[in-house]
Amino acid sequence: MSKVFTHNRQVEFNHCDPAGIVFYPRYFEMISSVCERFFSDAVDFSWAGTVMKQGYGTPMGNIEVRFHAASRLEDWLDFSLNIKKIGNASVTFLITCSCAGQPRFTCTATLVYANIATNASHPWPDAPRAAMQHYITPSLD
Amino acid sequence: MSKVFTHNRQVEFNHCDPAGIVFYPRYFEMISSVCERFFSDAVDFSWAGTVMKQGYGTPMGNIEVRFHAASRLEDWLDFSLNIKKIGNASVTFLITCSCAGQPRFTCTATLVYANIATNASHPWPDAPRAAMQHYITPSLD
Amino acid sequence: MSKVFTHNRQVEFNHCDPAGIVFYPRYFEMISSVCERFFSDAVDFSWAGTVMKQGYGTPMGNIEVRFHAASRLEDWLDFSLNIKKIGNASVTFLITCSCAGQPRFTCTATLVYANIATNASHPWPDAPRAAMQHYITPSLD
Amino acid sequence: MSKVFTHNRQVEFNHCDPAGIVFYPRYFEMISSVCERFFSDAVDFSWAGTVMKQGYGTPMGNIEVRFHAASRLEDWLDFSLNIKKIGNASVTFLITCSCAGQPRFTCTATLVYANIATNASHPWPDAPRAAMQHYITPSLD
Repeated sequence: MSKVFTHNRQVEFNHCDPAGIVFYPRYFEMISSVCERFFSDAVDFSWAGTVMKQGYGTPMGNIEVRFHAASRLEDWLDFSLNIKKIGNASVTFLITCSCAGQPRFTCTATLVYANIATNASHPWPDAPRAAMQHYITPSLD
Repeated sequence: MSKVFTHNRQVEFNHCDPAGIVFYPRYFEMISSVCERFFSDAVDFSWAGTVMKQGYGTPMGNIEVRFHAASRLEDWLDFSLNIKKIGNASVTFLITCSCAGQPRFTCTATLVYANIATNASHPWPDAPRAAMQHYITPSLD
Repeated sequence: MSKVFTHNRQVEFNHCDPAGIVFYPRYFEMISSVCERFFSDAVDFSWAGTVMKQGYGTPMGNIEVRFHAASRLEDWLDFSLNIKKIGNASVTFLITCSCAGQPRFTCTATLVYANIATNASHPWPDAPRAAMQHYITPSLD
Repeated sequence: MSKVFTHNRQVEFNHCDPAGIVFYPRYFEMISSVCERFFSDAVDFSWAGTVMKQGYGTPMGNIEVRFHAASRLEDWLDFSLNIKKIGNASVTFLITCSCAGQPRFTCTATLVYANIATNASHPWPDAPRAAMQHYITPSLD
């Protein structure tokens, strides 16, 4: 059975724009944080280790977000992360965000495992690949 | 003949991540700035007027970005904005970013004209609709 | 005996600059979050209520930060907040940040309770004033 | 006669908070940008060269900002930078921000020239030290 990685956080003042709703670029910072926590907590492959120490990273290749409803100050946002596909040097996440069951956005994001200096993609090492397999949702392929 | 709205800016220290490249959520702040300048300078329909004074805004409905290459500190980024489609209460932009002719990302973004308090979409007023018509690129439809 | 409000959080990728350390403007976002949590959790006077619903806020009047050492990705930061002084319409916080007991910064910040539309300061209501009294550290005066 | 380094920029949507005014942590990003431009344009000692290529940077040692009035969307902000003091391995800037002549904030900031890896301060090289001398305002000492 496939696992789902979840994360939740509250909308803060610094996320909100003059219209009183979350400024959408802040959602991309939240998406980055969810991915960061996933790699660290679920895959045991933290960015502090890969990026800072070994010279590899997971830059974004393609990202699409569909917004369903606005979020407001102090809303509690529930994020979930599944995997649609693991490629040789990439991974495609399906990330959803909701508040009290109401959908806020749906995101599909493909990250690439790559050498930071040369920008060349690189096959996933075996350990993170194996750990990520548990989060694949076959029906989404 | 269709017009293209252009904007350029330099990558600053605050845009870059520990890998030394632009942190992708910062690109969404840049995309927001390009849209903000377009509405203000090309359409004469500034957010300071619409959002702050009249209670309407242009929240993001859907956005997709494909990243082609990384940007680094002090790179000069050239942005261009065309319109793919103007709907009754929406507009779909094609925004590209390049540096010295090298593509950095391609973005398709659909914004909705909406009442901020009720979140309900609202038909574009005639003036901004007419001004935006000049930026439609028919071959992209 | 005076209380101390505490908060902790981990340094994320989005907080770090190309030198691999926390970019100092991000510390001011963290300081804002600590103040936001203090008003909400310790004073029962949340910004969502005061700012959004009643037209009052707590804009910053003066802030000074002395940095002692750099913070790096994944460091766990411990924040503490005491009150140095409560004025008629202001409050002066002493906020410290450390990591595993090593000081990272010391901040003195004076916020003003004010009407957002007119920008005029306004005396604290009795309830938040009484709640804040518990956090005064007399020896700091 | 001492020189003054100036910079101006317009308040954008992404700088503003739900109260409709500039969120003060965004001012620190602007202060960082002013310093970045000063080192690049006035001192010919850009962060892209020093930080990225030679392993040195100019981390903030101490910063104090006094806020005089709020800034709003589309305000044009005028920044000026003088030097109060150049130390062996530090420099103290006086940075002011105003809009149409009305003061918005006054900032005193001491940056340290330091080795990024070891965090140890290092004497300024002769060239940037000589270039910065022109911006000292003796009467401010």
